[in-house]
Amino acid sequence: MDTIPGTELAGRIGRLQRQLCDAADAEAVVVRQDVDLLYFSGTAQDAWMVIHRDGPPLLLVRRSLERARQESALDRIVPFSSGREIPALLAAHGLGHLRRVGLEFDVLPVEEYTRIGRLFPTMQFVDASPLIRRVRMIKSPYEVERIRAAARIADRMAQRMREALRPGRVELELAAEIEAEGRRHGHQGLVRTRRFNQALHYGHLLSGENGAVASAQDSATGGTGLSPAFGNSVGHRRIQAHEPVVLDYVGVFEGYHADQTRLFTIGALPADMTQAQDACVEILEDALVHLRPGIRAGEVYGRAVALADRRGYADRFMNTGAAQVSFIGHGVGLELDEIPVLARQSDLMLEPGMTLAIEPKIVFPGRGVVGVEDTVLVTTGPPECLTITPRGLVVL
Amino acid sequence: MDTIPGTELAGRIGRLQRQLCDAADAEAVVVRQDVDLLYFSGTAQDAWMVIHRDGPPLLLVRRSLERARQESALDRIVPFSSGREIPALLAAHGLGHLRRVGLEFDVLPVEEYTRIGRLFPTMQFVDASPLIRRVRMIKSPYEVERIRAAARIADRMAQRMREALRPGRVELELAAEIEAEGRRHGHQGLVRTRRFNQALHYGHLLSGENGAVASAQDSATGGTGLSPAFGNSVGHRRIQAHEPVVLDYVGVFEGYHADQTRLFTIGALPADMTQAQDACVEILEDALVHLRPGIRAGEVYGRAVALADRRGYADRFMNTGAAQVSFIGHGVGLELDEIPVLARQSDLMLEPGMTLAIEPKIVFPGRGVVGVEDTVLVTTGPPECLTITPRGLVVL
Repeated sequence: MDTIPGTELAGRIGRLQRQLCDAADAEAVVVRQDVDLLYFSGTAQDAWMVIHRDGPPLLLVRRSLERARQESALDRIVPFSSGREIPALLAAHGLGHLRRVGLEFDVLPVEEYTRIGRLFPTMQFVDASPLIRRVRMIKSPYEVERIRAAARIADRMAQRMREALRPGRVELELAAEIEAEGRRHGHQGLVRTRRFNQALHYGHLLSGENGAVASAQDSATGGTGLSPAFGNSVGHRRIQAHEPVVLDYVGVFEGYHADQTRLFTIGALPADMTQAQDACVEILEDALVHLRPGIRAGEVYGRAVALADRRGYADRFMNTGAAQVSFIGHGVGLELDEIPVLARQSDLMLEPGMTLAIEPKIVFPGRGVVGVEDTVLVTTGPPECLTITPRGLVVL
Repeated sequence: MDTIPGTELAGRIGRLQRQLCDAADAEAVVVRQDVDLLYFSGTAQDAWMVIHRDGPPLLLVRRSLERARQESALDRIVPFSSGREIPALLAAHGLGHLRRVGLEFDVLPVEEYTRIGRLFPTMQFVDASPLIRRVRMIKSPYEVERIRAAARIADRMAQRMREALRPGRVELELAAEIEAEGRRHGHQGLVRTRRFNQALHYGHLLSGENGAVASAQDSATGGTGLSPAFGNSVGHRRIQAHEPVVLDYVGVFEGYHADQTRLFTIGALPADMTQAQDACVEILEDALVHLRPGIRAGEVYGRAVALADRRGYADRFMNTGAAQVSFIGHGVGLELDEIPVLARQSDLMLEPGMTLAIEPKIVFPGRGVVGVEDTVLVTTGPPECLTITPRGLVVL
């Protein structure tokens, strides 16, 4: 089993500690969420990880201690069996003096937060999630390699789509086949999202008018889903010739996501849709030209929208009406919805090591969606495309 | 698309309202989590649902209003575009006077809770999740039908296992095939869990010693997973003859889960494992005899443990050492981890309409796990088994 090297963990922890020293809003961060635990400790156990701004981190593990010791390169791994032991364990490890501690407010449930508050009645808590997300935003070469491997899985899924797409096939059937292809090639199955109420099963596969069905998802596309219980992506619709079939599927390898969208059709698409697809590719390629360190994330968004406007798609770029979303891309890593978001209001400056999914899409109400998406790495020079499937419309 | 009937919603809302009147701890509940929204409104949108103890509920929808109107049988569906509009919208609908409101503390992130607190600075908030979970605990015939359909999907997956299991096959490959089989038959893909940091992709498929690998999961089984990033269920292990292969996979239909475990082997199992498997079936069948209204959930657990002890499995029933869990079953419905939990400390009385997964398992350290699991309905008479795959050990 591939475990995360100790040098990799030390780098991550060090960056968080420097941010803690600079920000000075909290003396330490207590990490509880599984993905953040994985990132900083190398293992996703039922655990508390205490990262003080000085000194080595402490990993308190309820379950499984054995797994934690096998998987984590950290030195201080200590078992506990009940949360009530935590205050004494912190004191025993020189962390009894903490007054102001950061927690993951964006993912920690109120119930869990209340429990922590009862254990530490005099402690003050601040939101550490912006800090954690900022550290996670910049990927190491180790992480980029894993996103590349995830991109190879996404490519396998796109290849399978090309082989399996035939008129009359039901969306769900096709999804089953493509998901199995990804899985056989090492897809972890689970797609991780951080935001409340956002869940995804591999991604969105949408044909014809299903591509124009809005959903609760914070995404340019929705889809009916199989039922209102999970109302996005595939339904029972039969795919026809001469309509757009979008495959927006996420490869996931060793926890890392690569987000890719490709467009397929059986027989030629209507001319207006082919034109719109060309515009999406143009918008993506234009964004890539300008994706350089020092550019504001909001500027990348602004350029894309301006270009979409000039091509005549103002009212249907990234969906229409109330369903229109105000971003054209997002960070990807151990979660699918990382920062920076390429959104109008984002002031984050692009930096080398950011990995971004850029996904211009154009919706035709009642008829479907076209679009393209690549996951790319920001470098000191031109961005590097991590997704590898050829970008062109696939006409079968 | 099958939407939830208005009578069904009215029954659910009415039961919550009666609990609100009896408990009197809050005047109203504000529902935010997608699964609870689906349960009470019939649609899982980005929404606030306000259920006052008297009068009709109000569904405020940010996205997608169109989907909410198509899917929900409720009358009062009102759009909003920013959370700042919520206080005025409540006032406009006669709900401006609320002082004490229940929220889902078990799933609501602190950040979201803080935002709600800023919108309603004088409001008091209490935890409504025990109330909501208690209402959801009792299933209507409509819900039971959907769990039956989910059980048919679980049965298809078990049948596929029987066809596909051969010596030398890699666990992951087998998982890909079985998941695709479930999906083709209408599996929604996503398995929903309510508890923080508990995620599952279809379930656990575990062969030989992988069945004895503990994980962070609150479950009798773990498994290596493909990497520490999602460290449970299948890995890259090749399956051998004469070892236990457990398929603990969840069918999901229209949001409803059915949890089933079956045991497979290629060639005969070692005698001690066959004996343990017989004991698991005996413990399950004994539990079913005693699963009657008025019995405490903790009593069902106690009987199972006592029987496991008498058969000589005290130290390995529901895993061993620190990995041993203290329950033998759990409620299932729109989420996999519903109440009641059949755990020592549970004082909940069994009632008709509860749907329970009962899953006695015995772990052999370093060698694997055996066990069985059915999802059953508590009735006024004997419980009814909703899962349909024959319970016997499958020897290939």
